[in-house]
Amino acid sequence: MARPTPLSGFPEWLPDGRVVEQHVLDTLRRTFELHGFAGIETRAVEPLDQLLRKGETSKEVYVLRRLQEEQAGDVAPPRGDTGAADKQLGLHFDLTVPFARYVLENAGRLAFPFKRYQIQKVWRGERPQDGRFREFVQADIDVVGAGELPYHYEVELPLVMAEALGALRDVGVPEVRILVNNRKVAEGFYRGLGLDDVEGVLRQVDKLDKIGPDAVAELLQAEQGATPEQAKACLELAAISGTDTAVVDRVRALAASYDAVTELLETGLGELSALVEAAARRAPGVVVADLKIARGLDYYTGSVYETVLVGHEQLGSICSGGRYDTLASDGKNTYPGVGLSIGVSRLVSRLLSAGLVAATRGVPTAVLVAVTDEAHRDRSDAVAAALRARGIPADVAPTAAKFGKQIKVADRRGIPFVWFPAQPGEDGATPEALAGEVKDIRSGEQAEADAATWEPPAADLFPRVVPAAAE
Amino acid sequence: MARPTPLSGFPEWLPDGRVVEQHVLDTLRRTFELHGFAGIETRAVEPLDQLLRKGETSKEVYVLRRLQEEQAGDVAPPRGDTGAADKQLGLHFDLTVPFARYVLENAGRLAFPFKRYQIQKVWRGERPQDGRFREFVQADIDVVGAGELPYHYEVELPLVMAEALGALRDVGVPEVRILVNNRKVAEGFYRGLGLDDVEGVLRQVDKLDKIGPDAVAELLQAEQGATPEQAKACLELAAISGTDTAVVDRVRALAASYDAVTELLETGLGELSALVEAAARRAPGVVVADLKIARGLDYYTGSVYETVLVGHEQLGSICSGGRYDTLASDGKNTYPGVGLSIGVSRLVSRLLSAGLVAATRGVPTAVLVAVTDEAHRDRSDAVAAALRARGIPADVAPTAAKFGKQIKVADRRGIPFVWFPAQPGEDGATPEALAGEVKDIRSGEQAEADAATWEPPAADLFPRVVPAAAE
Repeated sequence: MARPTPLSGFPEWLPDGRVVEQHVLDTLRRTFELHGFAGIETRAVEPLDQLLRKGETSKEVYVLRRLQEEQAGDVAPPRGDTGAADKQLGLHFDLTVPFARYVLENAGRLAFPFKRYQIQKVWRGERPQDGRFREFVQADIDVVGAGELPYHYEVELPLVMAEALGALRDVGVPEVRILVNNRKVAEGFYRGLGLDDVEGVLRQVDKLDKIGPDAVAELLQAEQGATPEQAKACLELAAISGTDTAVVDRVRALAASYDAVTELLETGLGELSALVEAAARRAPGVVVADLKIARGLDYYTGSVYETVLVGHEQLGSICSGGRYDTLASDGKNTYPGVGLSIGVSRLVSRLLSAGLVAATRGVPTAVLVAVTDEAHRDRSDAVAAALRARGIPADVAPTAAKFGKQIKVADRRGIPFVWFPAQPGEDGATPEALAGEVKDIRSGEQAEADAATWEPPAADLFPRVVPAAAE
Repeated sequence: MARPTPLSGFPEWLPDGRVVEQHVLDTLRRTFELHGFAGIETRAVEPLDQLLRKGETSKEVYVLRRLQEEQAGDVAPPRGDTGAADKQLGLHFDLTVPFARYVLENAGRLAFPFKRYQIQKVWRGERPQDGRFREFVQADIDVVGAGELPYHYEVELPLVMAEALGALRDVGVPEVRILVNNRKVAEGFYRGLGLDDVEGVLRQVDKLDKIGPDAVAELLQAEQGATPEQAKACLELAAISGTDTAVVDRVRALAASYDAVTELLETGLGELSALVEAAARRAPGVVVADLKIARGLDYYTGSVYETVLVGHEQLGSICSGGRYDTLASDGKNTYPGVGLSIGVSRLVSRLLSAGLVAATRGVPTAVLVAVTDEAHRDRSDAVAAALRARGIPADVAPTAAKFGKQIKVADRRGIPFVWFPAQPGEDGATPEALAGEVKDIRSGEQAEADAATWEPPAADLFPRVVPAAAE
């Protein structure tokens, strides 16, 4: 087999990169759990008809076939073992569709409002030349209610994400800004202006960052039939942003100047105001009301969120979501929800490629126990076992090479300590099994130690993730 | 959308089942890391030609297609954006094939011997009616060397698995027996008997548990051309098992009685003896030499392992593996390895369905903070934040319902404590923000508390996994 090359769009990390990713995942999980979110996983596949309910994403789905089935030929009649139970499956492209299905499937066994986090890979059949990920990890939190879901969750969820991402600041992850808007504000404003194709207008406004205000104004006129004045009003709304409730007053004043104040707008402004006000108190500076945030997807009905890494805005949003009045419905019951999703692979990929963070080592091992000779390997094994029993990751040298070579084994892996088991004394007396000397190979310091009691400094116990410059 | 039904072969757990699975995964990870294994993940897909290198598994592969491509028709010429970079992909069916590819791809950036663990889902396109999992989690450890790999790793790896599975004993996971054999013993013995189709003989012996010794004897004669005496010898070898090195003497005596002692047999017996002897010392009673263990796959060249849950032998092996002299090769370099793989889903599924273990609750939350009225929700938020800041998972009641109803919210989720923020006194004085009373809803005991200092008992801090009977 020739040396394989990476598959475009399917990122993988070397062990030290994985230490960074694992730290990110562990930090997110801990924050989510502290906030009472239950962890679940769903299967990677869903029936294709479920995945295609939203027409827009259909091109991105990976469809699965059993090879055997495929070899039998696509035109052959279904085999006896196929049928309903074997209907066409695709890999999920997000964690929202599977979660909605999970909620419906298990509604009778879940307690609502149900708060869950879910950290899994998703797949999108993007064209390879787009340079996008085709497999990546998402970390989602959602709260879903049965029939109803109080507004305060729309305030709570972005603050949980602010806390989760903020907990990564000390390892070198840049600050984030969570940009929030409210669909009711946009819809109320557009309708007040007399623009009733709300989705169409949102779709054009969503292009602002890519094509600029002039092009958006043209599109609004050409495709949504807006007058120049209506288009101007939409752009003026989109230009409003800020971190305090003055934003709300500016929107209200703008709407009044166009005689576009509606009840829906007022409801939306009330909600946006509550969110901005709570965020200013609980996470000062993190949440920014930004009236141009539209989110392409049509199922949001209240708050919408996007998140940028400060200094890396070109990366796009690393954490997005919103409120949807109908996450799922089985005809009888409707389940409204609100959720956000972190693009973990996108974030970690940037952290690594931009050299923002680094792992202190790529192996868990804190201590490499040297082997004097193969006949006494069991002595080294006993030392390692004693260290592990006290929670210290330890490995034993692969061979009884010269000690200099064994130290190199540790050095190549970034293992900070090498342990030398005690040798029989000149009098021939057998030393205590757990006695020895331990060397800090960074400083060269070496001291007598007992594997039953010795401890490395806490900072050396496990690999740490640190700002890259600090390493 | 009608209420969806589960997909056969794609297991999912409710939140409390996921607590059990997560505990298993965390325990395995911790043990692997204490032993110095670096965690990696590989992408879920591999080029189809790589997956099909072992002919036997070809029927089980799920092939991926981009929906767009598929809709263009199978007979259409390749699109401009396809080609080498977009060659046919399949989902991996184990973690060994991807690991071998990862080692080759990154050989220049890894330190050998390279110890890695890998915990991921794998997929097999089994026929749905077989009742087998089509998506499941595996937890693998492997050590791979560049050019060579010392035998002692064949002793070490099953002992790591024994420790990892043993660490689950206290939550109710039954004892395990790791059954070990050595390919060199089997091959040396068969060749000594004059049976040169070693793989064929192994394949028949592998059927012992399913069809019994008489049928195997017949097959050995009918298909491998064995004489009745040769078949008898193979069955006598397969009947030998034990936990100490006496096993080795019995094999040697058996071989001598058939005049079938070979150099290869002696090498294998030396290795098996070392493994049994070390295991008896380091994990008494766990490792059993069992000469009938064959492992279907043809790439094992030394030790082979299977693992049964005591009392659940019918479940089959939950942890298998072995030594392979050629995990990977790029023509210039060969990478020998030894590894084992735990079938996590198979294990967890049994733990849950047999009612062996249970989670004390399905949510992380230890404390539900009640809300007196919506106007004072921020007071409850502040209490929850103070608890979380000290590592106590806390949630705030969804609505300011009557306290009895809020207690029910906690009760339904198994949350042990409900916190009642202090009310303004009769004199109208504002209470300290973090003051309140906390109720253990199991005992009904209620006491004054301060959210800046109060702690739940350690046993209630996070959901625990316990033997089901103990719950």
